[in-house]
Amino acid sequence: MTMSAIPATRRAFRLRYRPKGAVTPDVFDLVEEPMPTPGPGEVLTRTLWLSIDPYMRGRLSDAKSYAEPVPIGGVMEGETVGEVLLSNHPRFAPGDVVVGPRGWTTHLTAPGDMLYKIPPDGAPPSTYLGVLGMPGTTAYSGMTDIGQPKAGETVVISAAAGAVGSVAGQLAKRAGARVIGIAGGAEKCLYIQDTLGFDGAIDYRAVDVGAALDELCPNGIDVYFENVGGDIQHQVFRRLNPFGRMVMCGMVAEYNDPEPRPGPNLMRVVRNRLRIQGLIVSDKPERFGEWRRLATPWVKEGSLKYREDVIDGFENAPQALIDILAGRNFGKLLVRVA
Amino acid sequence: MTMSAIPATRRAFRLRYRPKGAVTPDVFDLVEEPMPTPGPGEVLTRTLWLSIDPYMRGRLSDAKSYAEPVPIGGVMEGETVGEVLLSNHPRFAPGDVVVGPRGWTTHLTAPGDMLYKIPPDGAPPSTYLGVLGMPGTTAYSGMTDIGQPKAGETVVISAAAGAVGSVAGQLAKRAGARVIGIAGGAEKCLYIQDTLGFDGAIDYRAVDVGAALDELCPNGIDVYFENVGGDIQHQVFRRLNPFGRMVMCGMVAEYNDPEPRPGPNLMRVVRNRLRIQGLIVSDKPERFGEWRRLATPWVKEGSLKYREDVIDGFENAPQALIDILAGRNFGKLLVRVA
Repeated sequence: MTMSAIPATRRAFRLRYRPKGAVTPDVFDLVEEPMPTPGPGEVLTRTLWLSIDPYMRGRLSDAKSYAEPVPIGGVMEGETVGEVLLSNHPRFAPGDVVVGPRGWTTHLTAPGDMLYKIPPDGAPPSTYLGVLGMPGTTAYSGMTDIGQPKAGETVVISAAAGAVGSVAGQLAKRAGARVIGIAGGAEKCLYIQDTLGFDGAIDYRAVDVGAALDELCPNGIDVYFENVGGDIQHQVFRRLNPFGRMVMCGMVAEYNDPEPRPGPNLMRVVRNRLRIQGLIVSDKPERFGEWRRLATPWVKEGSLKYREDVIDGFENAPQALIDILAGRNFGKLLVRVA
Repeated sequence: MTMSAIPATRRAFRLRYRPKGAVTPDVFDLVEEPMPTPGPGEVLTRTLWLSIDPYMRGRLSDAKSYAEPVPIGGVMEGETVGEVLLSNHPRFAPGDVVVGPRGWTTHLTAPGDMLYKIPPDGAPPSTYLGVLGMPGTTAYSGMTDIGQPKAGETVVISAAAGAVGSVAGQLAKRAGARVIGIAGGAEKCLYIQDTLGFDGAIDYRAVDVGAALDELCPNGIDVYFENVGGDIQHQVFRRLNPFGRMVMCGMVAEYNDPEPRPGPNLMRVVRNRLRIQGLIVSDKPERFGEWRRLATPWVKEGSLKYREDVIDGFENAPQALIDILAGRNFGKLLVRVA
């Protein structure tokens, strides 16, 4: 790779306005702009994979949150896997593949200290955005710090075929729990049972979730890994056992709501001594390395299952975000940029 | 004390029916019935003090809860301090004063192993039902296991002049936190500030709670010790800081509701990584002894403040329960039986 291979411009999605409800493609501007130059300690990467995740909806809003919103006119947030084109950092050289540069653009500059170099004998690079990356680490952190499933307990996972839910459920299975997944559509439900090995699956689009939970969780629910919110949250909540834990990872079904819906009455938290706790994976950055060390062998040997849903072409990133917010993805959603 | 001093009958309140909404006096039957005889390992006590606590509303309902409801026709539940009249247990002798016999009656039999003998040089016997007993231990356990207030944090306590809230707030003050109490009426609010030493008080009957919280908690709220539910819960919840904790001790304002009210939308739990956790003091019985050892010197030296609201006459117990559910007590509510 020589300097001459670096184009003069990059493409980037910049935020045009803050959507009030559903996201539409015109929320973003696709612009062509001068190639940035890496500063001291930085590298320039060519984006290979762009991760699409439900949390991105929050970055479009200026409601107070754990992270700053993307400013109007700013490059949209997102994690990438990229190939190093230029390096001003001693640990990186052109040709290295790294995870960590952030932004919806075809080329990024990023501080080398923030990046992880994917080893050539590691798992496939895209997995460092999914099963081995932020979503997998989220599942690991949520189950380790909050869910703590035990052998014989009943664990329910929503968005169970997704990047986070699929790992959360497999971790609960490894702990010896009985695991029920909730997902939309027969295909995902088959996958949850046949490939992920969960003990049961509920297609929330086809059946009454409450009745299905009664049938599949006759002893109540001990751990709920919450990704969706909405009516599913209420149905699971009212079946939580004494000392039940609710890992509050996300509520994707409500992200487009202009006004918050009512939550469950909390008297059950007192009566049943429930613990409801929220989780943002970046609060414990040490979990990322822990999880990569723990799970890379599982991914390479095939004992930890994952599924990727790949959209080709950088220009399709906005539609991919719209799709994931509607649950139309099946597995970890990725945009293949190059 | 000789056998001849023991009357042939006792008086007892037995549950007549389960109230659907507000409690009325006719929920209980006052009956005169034969004096029970203590079995092996048991003692017979003459009730001196009967504790009246908001949790008792739950015992009238057959909704699934952590404790069995009082059966129709059964003696109403409640903790007492009593004087031992007869003892079949080696640790107790007539004349001993004990805390622990349970039931709304003038005389009780109880297993000696369940009782604590109040030392003659201890704090006043009634305090073992309040500041040193179940309510004080509840505050201690909630703050130790869930609230964990730190120096400089802002802590809000509802029902702050009550038996639990007053101790919870004083513990937060000892931890170096800034403490704001919520209570009904000017008199309680004066007490919270002048006697308990809290940093501020909000009279929820007189002011807009949300506006008052904004004024008194300009840096948001880190710990909420929840005793009341209702609109106060919503107002505090939406001001909880990142990593805020909500100690779910009770929701007395909703105990008479025939249908549950909506709770707060839980998206804030994700965004702010809140921890909402319920607490029943009997889950950790070791906390009772710990707290007595820790707090008895504080009570005797006067550094831990408490206030008792004493109703004279066993026959007034039902009205006392009605009053506490309406917040008409001021301090730990006790019925003086003898």
